Amino acid sequence: MHDRIRHAGLLDKRMSAEAAAALIKPGMTVAMSGFTGAGYPKAVPQALASRMEEVHADGGSFKIKVLTGASTAPELDGVLAKVGGMELRLPYMSDPALRKRINDGDLDYMDIHLSHVAQHTWFGFYGGINIAIVEVVGIREDGSLIPSSSVGNNKTWLDMADAVILEVNTQQSTAMEGMHDIYYGTALPPFRKPIMLTQPEDRIGQPYLDVDVDKVIAVVETDAPDRLSAFAAPDEASNQIADHLLDFLDGEIKTGRLTNTLLPLQSGVGNIANAVLAGLTRGGYRGLKAYTEVIQDGMLELIKDGTLAFASATSFSLSEAGIEEFNRHVDFYRERIMLRTQEISNHPELIRRLGCIALNGMIEADIYGNVNSTHVVGSHVMNVMNVMNVMNGIGGSGDFARNGFLGAFMSPSTAKGGAISGIVPMASHVDHTEHDTMLIITEQGLADLRGLAPKQRARDITEKCAHPDYKPMLEDYFARASRDSYGKHTPHLMGEALSWHQRYIETGDMRL
Amino acid sequence: MHDRIRHAGLLDKRMSAEAAAALIKPGMTVAMSGFTGAGYPKAVPQALASRMEEVHADGGSFKIKVLTGASTAPELDGVLAKVGGMELRLPYMSDPALRKRINDGDLDYMDIHLSHVAQHTWFGFYGGINIAIVEVVGIREDGSLIPSSSVGNNKTWLDMADAVILEVNTQQSTAMEGMHDIYYGTALPPFRKPIMLTQPEDRIGQPYLDVDVDKVIAVVETDAPDRLSAFAAPDEASNQIADHLLDFLDGEIKTGRLTNTLLPLQSGVGNIANAVLAGLTRGGYRGLKAYTEVIQDGMLELIKDGTLAFASATSFSLSEAGIEEFNRHVDFYRERIMLRTQEISNHPELIRRLGCIALNGMIEADIYGNVNSTHVVGSHVMNVMNVMNVMNGIGGSGDFARNGFLGAFMSPSTAKGGAISGIVPMASHVDHTEHDTMLIITEQGLADLRGLAPKQRARDITEKCAHPDYKPMLEDYFARASRDSYGKHTPHLMGEALSWHQRYIETGDMRL
Repeated sequence: MHDRIRHAGLLDKRMSAEAAAALIKPGMTVAMSGFTGAGYPKAVPQALASRMEEVHADGGSFKIKVLTGASTAPELDGVLAKVGGMELRLPYMSDPALRKRINDGDLDYMDIHLSHVAQHTWFGFYGGINIAIVEVVGIREDGSLIPSSSVGNNKTWLDMADAVILEVNTQQSTAMEGMHDIYYGTALPPFRKPIMLTQPEDRIGQPYLDVDVDKVIAVVETDAPDRLSAFAAPDEASNQIADHLLDFLDGEIKTGRLTNTLLPLQSGVGNIANAVLAGLTRGGYRGLKAYTEVIQDGMLELIKDGTLAFASATSFSLSEAGIEEFNRHVDFYRERIMLRTQEISNHPELIRRLGCIALNGMIEADIYGNVNSTHVVGSHVMNVMNVMNVMNGIGGSGDFARNGFLGAFMSPSTAKGGAISGIVPMASHVDHTEHDTMLIITEQGLADLRGLAPKQRARDITEKCAHPDYKPMLEDYFARASRDSYGKHTPHLMGEALSWHQRYIETGDMRL
Repeated sequence: MHDRIRHAGLLDKRMSAEAAAALIKPGMTVAMSGFTGAGYPKAVPQALASRMEEVHADGGSFKIKVLTGASTAPELDGVLAKVGGMELRLPYMSDPALRKRINDGDLDYMDIHLSHVAQHTWFGFYGGINIAIVEVVGIREDGSLIPSSSVGNNKTWLDMADAVILEVNTQQSTAMEGMHDIYYGTALPPFRKPIMLTQPEDRIGQPYLDVDVDKVIAVVETDAPDRLSAFAAPDEASNQIADHLLDFLDGEIKTGRLTNTLLPLQSGVGNIANAVLAGLTRGGYRGLKAYTEVIQDGMLELIKDGTLAFASATSFSLSEAGIEEFNRHVDFYRERIMLRTQEISNHPELIRRLGCIALNGMIEADIYGNVNSTHVVGSHVMNVMNVMNVMNGIGGSGDFARNGFLGAFMSPSTAKGGAISGIVPMASHVDHTEHDTMLIITEQGLADLRGLAPKQRARDITEKCAHPDYKPMLEDYFARASRDSYGKHTPHLMGEALSWHQRYIETGDMRL
């Protein structure tokens, strides 16, 4: 028997990626696995993109609607974007080629809270799913599936799709078997029950994904690794942001609002997140837990050195070195990591119950604490002046910040060599309202908004977080708004609130 | 024995409102009962306001921090606002005198999701509570309290306050005894457990509030009714909005996304809400349930005629006629109404589990579906041009819209005789982001945003919801933004996005 495909009926359904891709028709809604560059299908989307390219070369049109867990990789979002093969994409992405398409207005992109995607699909808000394409580690004798390096929405895709294509990837370690927890207790209202999870390490489901084998129309064997996310050493600003956060946490412990094991951590992805994680070890924390979305290299290190006792997530996002480390000590990590469906990893019920500490990046905050996570006026990761371009998406930041015990939004105080301020009079797009933000952190400092009304927030955010180049400008705006605004609760000058963004468009610099 | 105060020790603590008010010192944090004009203390705040007035007349200063459930009434917010006796007020208000103070910048007002207030207090975000002032129907032999016409945050106030003042109000019907469900299963993370409620009618707590009798420093007898909310007959625009919603619900039933008993309804307060409730009876619905914040006259009628089988809320808000009707048929209503703490009535865990249908008013929506619920540029209920003035607050609209099965935001398409559009290029304040809004309804029509990306939303909201006076202006803005915006995902012109609001400030009319 095939060692990765141990179900006879499904073994018979093996075919090439090209043959599987030929089963996908224009206009179909295709739900794919994948979360933060892990566990996405690697062969069928590429074969599909080749077919689309041929059709387009012949003057035809071939586009599909694509649903995923979150961001995927060049072999999925990248190739489909390059050939203009998507008419709709949801709920989160980070691929440069796809981002360009979205910002050019070439396709519809729906940016959705990651906890909402599965239930909105079940509610019927996106129509049906024609085909699910899901990467797995292997197929068991009973037809159940060993999940891959991400779980994401796979349970929902497999349940809801009319037909299923499986990619069995031999590059994914069989050692992951048993580390997943797939919750099958979901239902539609009014039949929903409490989700009986009270600690990050609680097992509430089963290690395998179920699939109706009769729905499987193709099994494709692949042998390609997940996109490798190199582990970047934190820069100075990120370390300063981390230090401000760690000082704050120390203070919370001293006042008794937190204990020295804190509460379950959620951490976004990237430079600042890595710096924060590294800082936790430096700060002497031991026995912490994470209830988060993604396990990065930095988190493996924390587990190894005992800073983290347990991590629950929906996905790995490891570099090549991280994967090697994981595989070498898999028996150790198996006891300390669990991967769940993203509706559980990001569930408001569980985030509020556990009291997560939510740590996420942002693009800009305004003086009242409204946060923009999605639409940039230029950015260090973008090459050109992109005003009101979408950056990536809200991801899970809203699920965690709205429902957690604490929510921090972090960013350097400036970007583009100082031409852009991370603190502005009015956010040019709001993803997290004043009602949902507690801590704003830049390398300049930390503003603690808890218990503060709007004008107090404005003073604190300006004083603590703004870059010196912009602080006088913000003080001036707030002083004039406080004097001239018709209402004095949240003073603003309508004719000037977005002038910094307009100035950047015109001159390439927010400074006067 | 006193028939309302059946605990001997507490009977001994009776005193006048003036004597009780004298126990409150400047700078104290005072947590008071009250939710939507029901169950608020009626005597002590007035006596306190008189003392403050005397101190202020002598050139002194006497201000306190006031926490409540939601809005109260003239006898609390009104009198304290008039004498300038509050330095901080949270989480929601609707009193004209207080609103003026806030908009004049005279005090700090924190506008908080109603589901967050109790837990943020427990988290220590607002400091301690010096005194709780709570209205009750009566005190039982064991010292437990029969709750009044609202529950709100009373459980938290009684538990957390250093000292307690009780107002025993003989105007509140003893027939309410047994209708409350006070949940004592809350805890701080990491000790929280699932809340085992799966239907609006489930009882998960006890009918009485507990209080440490040793903390009670005063018992004040009162005899004044709740503020009377006259039941306004819906106007034509409200009826049209209701009709659009009812047509939509019919469609959802036909597609099978809803059954003919719908899902638990949450309904805001006011004209449009009344029209929607009336429409449900007209539409032939039977056996519906409500999981909401407030029981208004309209809801009593629905219960009486069988449209509603059960209503869970945290407060009554009945007119004099409504109170009479309730008292006359209290045995009937007792089986069909339950009042809970507001952390349970508005709990994200429960709203998502139950799949509530959230129906709330708004001030304005922008073409991308961002909704402003709190900050008005003028309004029909305000007398003067109040730009960026706070209106009332977000209340529970965010709890329900973010977590429910469906969320609708409703408003007439224009205000001030057409001078203000309810649909604008960019919302001047965002309380509900594009990620959290599903339906936008005006008397012109209904835009169903589910499954729509930003540019599709812009076309639909403009086409379906905008007033004919403003539709060409919105189309023109969107066309030019789609052409000239640097990013084409959510096209905006930074220099023009808020120009309608600015024009209103300058000319008193958003129209060109």
